[in-house]
Amino acid sequence: MKILFLISCYYVITTHDVNGYEIFNSERQCYLPPYLKKEIQSYGNFVNDIIQISTTGNYAGEYYNDLSKFIDRYGNRLSGTKNLEESINDIAMKSASKGLEVSLDPVMVPHWVRNYESAHLLSPRKKELNILGLGYSPGTPGSNGITAEVIVVDNFEELEERCAEVSGKIVLFNANFTTYGETVKYRSKGPAKAAKLGAVAALVKSVTPFSIYSPHTGTTSFKNGGPKIPSACVTLEDADFLARLFKRGHKIIVNLQMNAVLKPSTLSRNLLADFRGKQLPNHQVIVSGHIDSWDVGEGALDDGVGAFLALHSLFLLKFMNVPTPKRTMRAVLWTAEELGLIGAQAYLKEHECELQYITAALESDFGSSIPQGLNFEGNDEAYCIVKEIASLFDRLNATTVDKITGVGSDVSVFKPNGIPLIEPRYVNSNYMWFHHTNGDSMRTLNKETMDKNLAVFAATTYILANLSVPLPRPGQTVWDLVPNK
Amino acid sequence: MKILFLISCYYVITTHDVNGYEIFNSERQCYLPPYLKKEIQSYGNFVNDIIQISTTGNYAGEYYNDLSKFIDRYGNRLSGTKNLEESINDIAMKSASKGLEVSLDPVMVPHWVRNYESAHLLSPRKKELNILGLGYSPGTPGSNGITAEVIVVDNFEELEERCAEVSGKIVLFNANFTTYGETVKYRSKGPAKAAKLGAVAALVKSVTPFSIYSPHTGTTSFKNGGPKIPSACVTLEDADFLARLFKRGHKIIVNLQMNAVLKPSTLSRNLLADFRGKQLPNHQVIVSGHIDSWDVGEGALDDGVGAFLALHSLFLLKFMNVPTPKRTMRAVLWTAEELGLIGAQAYLKEHECELQYITAALESDFGSSIPQGLNFEGNDEAYCIVKEIASLFDRLNATTVDKITGVGSDVSVFKPNGIPLIEPRYVNSNYMWFHHTNGDSMRTLNKETMDKNLAVFAATTYILANLSVPLPRPGQTVWDLVPNK
Repeated sequence: MKILFLISCYYVITTHDVNGYEIFNSERQCYLPPYLKKEIQSYGNFVNDIIQISTTGNYAGEYYNDLSKFIDRYGNRLSGTKNLEESINDIAMKSASKGLEVSLDPVMVPHWVRNYESAHLLSPRKKELNILGLGYSPGTPGSNGITAEVIVVDNFEELEERCAEVSGKIVLFNANFTTYGETVKYRSKGPAKAAKLGAVAALVKSVTPFSIYSPHTGTTSFKNGGPKIPSACVTLEDADFLARLFKRGHKIIVNLQMNAVLKPSTLSRNLLADFRGKQLPNHQVIVSGHIDSWDVGEGALDDGVGAFLALHSLFLLKFMNVPTPKRTMRAVLWTAEELGLIGAQAYLKEHECELQYITAALESDFGSSIPQGLNFEGNDEAYCIVKEIASLFDRLNATTVDKITGVGSDVSVFKPNGIPLIEPRYVNSNYMWFHHTNGDSMRTLNKETMDKNLAVFAATTYILANLSVPLPRPGQTVWDLVPNK
Repeated sequence: MKILFLISCYYVITTHDVNGYEIFNSERQCYLPPYLKKEIQSYGNFVNDIIQISTTGNYAGEYYNDLSKFIDRYGNRLSGTKNLEESINDIAMKSASKGLEVSLDPVMVPHWVRNYESAHLLSPRKKELNILGLGYSPGTPGSNGITAEVIVVDNFEELEERCAEVSGKIVLFNANFTTYGETVKYRSKGPAKAAKLGAVAALVKSVTPFSIYSPHTGTTSFKNGGPKIPSACVTLEDADFLARLFKRGHKIIVNLQMNAVLKPSTLSRNLLADFRGKQLPNHQVIVSGHIDSWDVGEGALDDGVGAFLALHSLFLLKFMNVPTPKRTMRAVLWTAEELGLIGAQAYLKEHECELQYITAALESDFGSSIPQGLNFEGNDEAYCIVKEIASLFDRLNATTVDKITGVGSDVSVFKPNGIPLIEPRYVNSNYMWFHHTNGDSMRTLNKETMDKNLAVFAATTYILANLSVPLPRPGQTVWDLVPNK
C-alpha cells in the first residue's frame, strides 16, 4: 500500500476562469496516507463548532461590524498617507488587546498623490470626461495641461499598425474586458508603450466588464529611464463614445489636466500579529490581506475585508479559546500592495531565513462573496491535503478546492520559494465591478457571507498550523514528511 | 352569440411589479367579435414582414445607429438649453425628409440650471460626498453654502417622530428602495416636508436598488408659497455610511454648496411628425417618447431610446412603403418631461378638441430591454384587442399584455380622458440602475433588442391605425363600435 501513499493520480484538463486563472477543474484523485486523512477528519467537530460560533453563535457579525467601524472611521488608506499609518496603529493595538504578539516591520513606501485632475472633450463637442489618474502617472505640464488629438486603438497590435500616427497625440486604449489577467496589461503597460511612440498622454478604458460611469484606477508601469506620460483611466461609457467618434472619422480633441505627483517615499509598516505555536513556534502559517487601499472609495472590498479576514481568523480562534497549535499562526497585514506589492517584497527580504518554515501562506484579496472553497497553488500532494481539509466545510457547501496559477497578490512573492499558497474561492463575485472605484464600500459586503468566509479561513489556518506534517513543497511528498510514529 | 361579443370575463388577481404598478396578471379571457379577431389575425404576414425587416433585413440596426449618432452629437438635453432645441430641429428635418408632416408646438419650459455643487462631510471625519442637486432645488446662500448638523430618518414616520430635532439641520432621507413608485416620494416630497419643519437643507438617498457610487437626480416639489431648501441626492453608499454614523451617535456635520438657479422659462417645442391617415385623417394613434433629458449622462436610456422608438416606428413603416392606414399615426416627441410633464400638459391643452379622436397613445419611457409584450391601461375590451394584436408577436416571444395602472409618463395626462394607453413590457430591465445618472449612455442599450422592440411598436401602431374600429373607451364596448358591414 505504500506505493499508494506516494502516487497521486490526476486527470488534468485546464481551463481559465474569468480572472484568467488557469483552473485544473478535472476529476482529480488524491491518495493521502490514511493516518493523515484520519487526522484531518478528526477536526470535523472543531470545524462544526467554528461554523456555528461564527455564523449563528456569539461571534456572528463581529467581523462585519468591526470592519464597518474601521472603514467608517478611516475610509481609504493610500500608501504615504497619515491615515494609513493611523489605521495600522489602531489595528496593532486591537490585535495586542486580543492577546496576539504584534510587531510592525518598517517599510519604505511610495507616496503618489493624485491631486486635481480633469479631462474635457473639446471637439467634436464639449463634454467632461470622468477620469481617474493611474498610480505613478506624472502630472501634466504647465497650468493648462495637455490639449491634443486623440487616437483610439483597440489593442497593442493596432497601436503598432498606427505607430506613425501616435506622435504628439493622446492614445486611448479601448480594449474590452475579457479576463482581468488579459485586459489589465493595457493599464499596466499601455501608457509606457504609447510614450515610447511619442504619445503625449494615455487614456485607458477601465478594466471592468460593467460600469455605471465608474472609472477604475490602478498602477501603470514606466521603465526606468523610459519616457513617462500622464495617464488616466476613462469609463467604459466614455471610451465607447470616443471610439465611435473616432471610427466615424471625427477629429477628437481632449484637454487633460493632472496635478499628480510622486513625492519622496515615506515610512509605513507591515503589521504582524502572531498566535504563537507551542511545539514548533518558528514554523508558521501566514494568513493575510493588505491594509492599504486606493485613494478612491473606502477600501472596504479591496482589501479591508481581506485584511480583517486574516485578523479575525486569529481573533475568532482566541475567542474560542482553542488549544495552542503546534505552529505559529501569523496574521500579516501587508502595506502598499496597490503600488506594487511593496510590503510583501520587503517582508520577503526581511524574513528570508524564516521562509523555509512557512507551511502555507493564505491571503484574501479578491473581495468577499459566497464561499465555494479554496484556490490553491503549489505541490500536488499539498493540494490533496488542502482538499481533505476543505471536505470538512460541507455544511457551508464550500468543499471545492481548485489548483490554479495566480493565487493571491502579496503572497505571490513566496511562489519562487515553493511555499503553498491559498485563497478563498467564491461563487459569482462581482468584485471587478467595484474594484479600484469610488464604489468600493461596505455596501459591497454581506455580513452573513463574511461570517461563512471567516469560518473557512480560520479553520483552514488552524488545522494547517496544528497538523502533524507541514504542507509538502515542490520535490517533496507527504511520505517524506510522515512524522515519526 | 351576440351576448358573447358583449361580455368579457376576467379572473382578476392584482399584484404589484418592481415599479409599483398594479398588474392584473391573472388568466384573463377575452371574447371579441369574430370578424375583429379575424381582421387582427389577418395582419400575421405583415407582422412577420416587419419583424424580418427590422431584425435581419435592410432596417436591422438602423434604429440603434441613428440614435447612437444623435446621442453622440448632442449628449444630454435638459429643458431650457439650446442643445435641446437644436436636437429638436435636427429631428424635425430628419422626419420631414422621411415624408412625415412635421409641426412644432411651442411650449414654455422651465430652465433650471445645476451649476457648481458639492457636499463635504466635515465631522466625524472629512470626506467628499458625491451628490446631484434635485431639479427645482434652490442654491445655497452666500459663498460658503450651508454647514449644518445632519439628522438621518428612514421614512416620513420617523421624520414626524423627530420633528422637534429637525430645525436648523440637514435632513437625510435614508429610505431603501422597494419599488420606484413607493420610494420616489422621498425625493419628490421629502425636501418640502423637511423645509416645513425648519430644516435648512435636504439630502435624499438615491432612488435605485443598485449603485457604483452613482447618485440619481430627479425633480423635487415645493408647494407654492411654502419654504424651499437646497436639496440633493446622495449615493446609496454615502447614505448607508452617514446612517451608520448617526446610529452610533456621532455628530455629523456637512457643508453643502449648490449654485443651482431657476431661470426664467424659455421656449421649447413638442415635435409632431404625422404619417397621415386616408379615411379618417383626423383620427390618431399617438406613438411617443420624450426628447428632453436630465443634464447628467447622455439621455440615451431616458429617453432617447423611447423618442427614437416612436420616430423609427414611422420611419420603418415609411421604409416598408406600407399602404396608407385609415387613421393618422402621429409620433410625438414631448419636451420637458423631466421637469414635470410640461410638454404633455401643453399638448393636452393645445389639442383638446382632438382628444376624442385619439384611438390609443403609445409611449416608451422605461428604457429598452428584451420585449415581452405590452403594458396596457384602459377599457377591458380595448385590452382584449391589444392582446389579440400582441398574439401576432409570438416569433418574438412578446405576446404578453398586462393591464396595469400607471402606463407611460407623458401619456398619463390622457388618462382622465379615457384614452387607452400602451407601453412596451420588458423582461429583466435594469433601467433603475442607470436612470437619472451619469451612466445613462448608449452602453445600456442593445442593438438586437432594440430592433425587436421596434417591430413590436411599429406593428402595434400601424394595426391600431388601420383597424376597422377604434379602441373602446370607458363605458363603450366593441359592439358599439362595430363598423357598418
